[in-house]
Amino acid sequence: MEYRIGLGHDTHRLVEGRPLILGGVSIPHLRGLVGHSDADALLHALTDALLGAAGLGDIGEAFPDDDRRWQGADSRIFLDATLQRLQALRWKVVNIDAIIFAQEPKLGAWKAVIRRNLARLLALPEDNINVKAKTGEGVGHIGRGEALAAQVVVLLQR
Amino acid sequence: MEYRIGLGHDTHRLVEGRPLILGGVSIPHLRGLVGHSDADALLHALTDALLGAAGLGDIGEAFPDDDRRWQGADSRIFLDATLQRLQALRWKVVNIDAIIFAQEPKLGAWKAVIRRNLARLLALPEDNINVKAKTGEGVGHIGRGEALAAQVVVLLQR
Amino acid sequence: MEYRIGLGHDTHRLVEGRPLILGGVSIPHLRGLVGHSDADALLHALTDALLGAAGLGDIGEAFPDDDRRWQGADSRIFLDATLQRLQALRWKVVNIDAIIFAQEPKLGAWKAVIRRNLARLLALPEDNINVKAKTGEGVGHIGRGEALAAQVVVLLQR
Ligand SMILES: [Mg+2]
Ligand SMILES: [Mg+2]
Ligand SMILES: [Mg+2]
Repeated sequence: MEYRIGLGHDTHRLVEGRPLILGGVSIPHLRGLVGHSDADALLHALTDALLGAAGLGDIGEAFPDDDRRWQGADSRIFLDATLQRLQALRWKVVNIDAIIFAQEPKLGAWKAVIRRNLARLLALPEDNINVKAKTGEGVGHIGRGEALAAQVVVLLQR
Repeated sequence: MEYRIGLGHDTHRLVEGRPLILGGVSIPHLRGLVGHSDADALLHALTDALLGAAGLGDIGEAFPDDDRRWQGADSRIFLDATLQRLQALRWKVVNIDAIIFAQEPKLGAWKAVIRRNLARLLALPEDNINVKAKTGEGVGHIGRGEALAAQVVVLLQR
Repeated sequence: MEYRIGLGHDTHRLVEGRPLILGGVSIPHLRGLVGHSDADALLHALTDALLGAAGLGDIGEAFPDDDRRWQGADSRIFLDATLQRLQALRWKVVNIDAIIFAQEPKLGAWKAVIRRNLARLLALPEDNINVKAKTGEGVGHIGRGEALAAQVVVLLQR
């Protein structure tokens, strides 16, 4: 058995008039994430962690944000395409641990929904997926509500 | 053998008139960490990494910060309870690598003390625990001394 | 087979009149990184991740920044010395996944060069090394261009 680890991080600015989509789940909130695609910071960090573990570069290379194909794109497309590349290389996801950093909204009730959705998108048992949430403790760009971030580690095996 | 990885992160604001406790060790300093419990950012990040690796959610779910039971609580309680949950699932900690981000105080002399204490709390050899420290390089909320943060990765096996 | 994981993080301030060296590669830019050594944030984060995984402390302990030997030092010295310590303990690097956080310069074209250089320095196939880049999305000390950071995870086996 071979193993690989990967780390993904993504930050997006929060503004009024944009949807807030995290892990493929739409979360009702006055503000949402700015980006070329749907700006799903959690799926972007996860995609980057998967690409990184498999030695496949990063999301910016795979899905350039100046490519009109990805304007307003559903980030599940990025995850799906990445999972196909991993499958072609016979990599399987062992587990995923994610942190969402957001001063607002409160994500307590949403973590389980996001986790279930990730499990579905990755065709993995929920036990192998974990979603945590942290506020910014009122400091820095997360704490001031200027942005939201996600950080993800993954373990692969084949 | 099965493996799992986990990632924990915690930030707490630094203010005068609070104790500074890191990894269960009291560190003499003019300022300390704000929080509902003893605000031990390192034990919180470690607990979150362990919960995350085992697919058990996060510290906010397990030990809500609006629960009066945890007001002023010794964070070793959170770690102990988490280790018991892991043991029930037959997970063993392989190794822990931690980073403490603090502009002040200088933690150079404290890293070894904290490491030894974590090894004791986790009943692991010191070789399997590592504690690093970084300043904030004078930038951001860490660099301005507004807050202190900790980040931890863990590897589990069973 | 035994496994260990490690996490490294490094931040350096960006100023005019300093070279920008990342992963041992000189990158032409108006500004560069402040530090006692050559301030190669990526090699520092990588060295810290390797030391952390092997339970060998951190780069500040191994190569103190008040030691005149390391003034202006080429950070490849730190990496080489660390790899020798790992080899003596029979640890082999399985894979490395790195993120460089920089608002500027654009690192798109440099990621492959840095990756190839890291593979050479570590005597590993490029497949086992991954280098990602992220901007700071215009927020925080990275987004304002005050600093550049790197974060690295490593997996070791023996
Ligand atoms: Mg993104
Ligand atoms: Mg906390
Ligand atoms: Mg450094």
